[in-house]
Amino acid sequence: MSSWLKIPAGSHFSLRNLPFGIISTKGDAQKRAGVAIGNQVLDLKQFSALGGFAPLGFKETNVFSESTLNSFAALGQQVHRQVREYLQEVFTQGGKYADVLENNQQAQQQAIVPIENVQNHLPMAIGDYTDFYVGLNHAYNCGVLFRGPENALQPNYYHLPVGYHGRASSVVPSGTDLHRPCGQILENPAVKEPSFAPCKRLDYELEMAAFVCTPNKLGQRVDVNEAESHIFGYVLMNDWSARDIQAWEYVPLGPFTAKNFGTSISPWVILHDALKPFKAAPLDRPADKKVLPYLQEKDTNSVFNINLEVELKTKEGDIEVLSTGTSSKMLFSFPQMIAHHTVTGCNLNTGDLIASGTISGEDSNSFGSMLEKSKGGKEKFKVGNSERTFIEDGDTIIMRAVAKADDGCVGFGEVTGTILPPIN
Amino acid sequence: MSSWLKIPAGSHFSLRNLPFGIISTKGDAQKRAGVAIGNQVLDLKQFSALGGFAPLGFKETNVFSESTLNSFAALGQQVHRQVREYLQEVFTQGGKYADVLENNQQAQQQAIVPIENVQNHLPMAIGDYTDFYVGLNHAYNCGVLFRGPENALQPNYYHLPVGYHGRASSVVPSGTDLHRPCGQILENPAVKEPSFAPCKRLDYELEMAAFVCTPNKLGQRVDVNEAESHIFGYVLMNDWSARDIQAWEYVPLGPFTAKNFGTSISPWVILHDALKPFKAAPLDRPADKKVLPYLQEKDTNSVFNINLEVELKTKEGDIEVLSTGTSSKMLFSFPQMIAHHTVTGCNLNTGDLIASGTISGEDSNSFGSMLEKSKGGKEKFKVGNSERTFIEDGDTIIMRAVAKADDGCVGFGEVTGTILPPIN
Repeated sequence: MSSWLKIPAGSHFSLRNLPFGIISTKGDAQKRAGVAIGNQVLDLKQFSALGGFAPLGFKETNVFSESTLNSFAALGQQVHRQVREYLQEVFTQGGKYADVLENNQQAQQQAIVPIENVQNHLPMAIGDYTDFYVGLNHAYNCGVLFRGPENALQPNYYHLPVGYHGRASSVVPSGTDLHRPCGQILENPAVKEPSFAPCKRLDYELEMAAFVCTPNKLGQRVDVNEAESHIFGYVLMNDWSARDIQAWEYVPLGPFTAKNFGTSISPWVILHDALKPFKAAPLDRPADKKVLPYLQEKDTNSVFNINLEVELKTKEGDIEVLSTGTSSKMLFSFPQMIAHHTVTGCNLNTGDLIASGTISGEDSNSFGSMLEKSKGGKEKFKVGNSERTFIEDGDTIIMRAVAKADDGCVGFGEVTGTILPPIN
Repeated sequence: MSSWLKIPAGSHFSLRNLPFGIISTKGDAQKRAGVAIGNQVLDLKQFSALGGFAPLGFKETNVFSESTLNSFAALGQQVHRQVREYLQEVFTQGGKYADVLENNQQAQQQAIVPIENVQNHLPMAIGDYTDFYVGLNHAYNCGVLFRGPENALQPNYYHLPVGYHGRASSVVPSGTDLHRPCGQILENPAVKEPSFAPCKRLDYELEMAAFVCTPNKLGQRVDVNEAESHIFGYVLMNDWSARDIQAWEYVPLGPFTAKNFGTSISPWVILHDALKPFKAAPLDRPADKKVLPYLQEKDTNSVFNINLEVELKTKEGDIEVLSTGTSSKMLFSFPQMIAHHTVTGCNLNTGDLIASGTISGEDSNSFGSMLEKSKGGKEKFKVGNSERTFIEDGDTIIMRAVAKADDGCVGFGEVTGTILPPIN
């Protein structure tokens, strides 16, 4: 596929991708839907107003004037497919819909905006956010740090995708800066008296996350082999974590204030169809650890092979790539997470966000958190001309994800965030 | 205060109360706001349309035509106070607003509905739901069962209100029946292989919960001594719990599918002002376990003395009161929960639900769960002519809460739910 629109080589937003997001511009502050292509964004509200969807016969274009993608997502994968494939044709050089944009300079001027002039917003209204823990290497590494290699993984780990309910209100779009959190920390374990202090072990977590499109009713399980059809698309996530606060608070009910001060996501939702060509097998499991039937998938390639990268930029401007890896390092797939999430009858709604948990590779150059990379804060690693064990004030964490193919990349762009000093 | 409207002695909905809810009726299926009084409900949409709020000069009556109370809640405690006190005057015999309803038969007929003709719905759109664990006796009893009396409470327990993020989508109004959940259970711990089975240790949890009215921004802590002003009102909650599923899944990230299949709340929101006269001191804490400054309250009476009751009705019709206690058996207050919830900067939104965790008294007649009452399933207790350790199919759990005063009760009504057989 080749586009009449100039798409730079290696762009995350090739014609194969066409991710959806919520945008505003200087000229129009109203939040609305857009599609990224190369270094441009197609303003779907404008495009709809110009009759751009008339040849498709798609009539529910009002969904693109809304401030979230929820109504579009709720139309279901069949509609997402039609709209995305139609837009691919519209942008294909000499395609059958060339009169819509390619041969229509005026429409191009009205509906296409340079991406640098676009402000991104949260793409979805998130009802509930769930964070899983299916990154086997991460779970093992953390387990070793806390319980030693013998007991690193809990007995349930291979049998179910371990997960917990996260905080939906503090999910923020890429580019949102966050203050270093303060909270209860046991600074001196010998004393057993906590203090109120700024987090000293602030970390990132590299995750993939899926947005739900099709809801299920309360009491209704989603079949693992149908779960994929409940997914709208995917984003990249940084699940900021205050390790010292977490260590003190998390027994017996799990992480709470250590996680709920902010979770950053990339702004463009990569539709399920766009990632399908990059399917891969999940991590191997021991032969004696078969999952129960409700988690058994017909599709053995149920995760994705997407290149992941984490970069740290200091306030002095030093840049260091901390991690490169792949998103296939998951023990359970998103369909398995959905099947398990609903096993007791929990209802998922359009816009719900389901995250993988930290994805780490096997060695320290592919770890998805600083906790692992610094071996629990014990070993410093290089960042430009300085060193780190955890995040320092002024540090910017930049995550990128891209699936590469010869005829164009399917990428997530970036999720970034800078840590500002604490507010006391 | 005496009303011209007949209010039965002992009614939960005396003139002192006036709780708000979302209703519909046979004649008008549109969800809208109502206020309960005695055995009647004032339809606030009708009342507004008749000009009922004109003497108050309250102009934002459109909030009462909405399908949730969120917009009304967002107006803040000052407005809730004005509206509630005005309605108390309207219903007071020979009050200064007697012409609004008392002397206006037609308005009475149009705006007042018998409570049995009213269908209740969820009162708020719940963005996030958080469940705490501040019932000290419950935490201790569960700790003894799992870790013995020496280590019953974790080291953090006296220092912070332990809490976790719950599932907002499956919060349902009283009267919603639920199927017994199926899930992963380790039926034979010796084998270490879980099975997929219906829950055999299904339990209730008796809790109080608060709805947030005034939001705080991301990064902004709520001061413990101002937190009360962020509360719209209170409901009674049954946090249904699948103990066998929970035991297997909860390490290391907390309860998940064991809790997210349904959480029932009473439909009428008791405004903060209505409960103020029933304030009481929280549970004593050891002298050496002082809380950190951000949790220190000026008001030493920061919880409420409300009578709590749990009743079980079998499908044969046997009824047994399983528990009577008081809501003051909490180690931390709702303002402390809010201050802690926001300590790292988490933003709370209008409509967020914050629950206490199970409230138990000191003896088995005041325990807030069957897990405690049956000593972890080991001791049967009497229910009419049969016995129970946990909930059986067809059982209905009925919880009631009421604060009693000589001149009228402030009650929550009931939260009920029946457990139906599992769907396999």
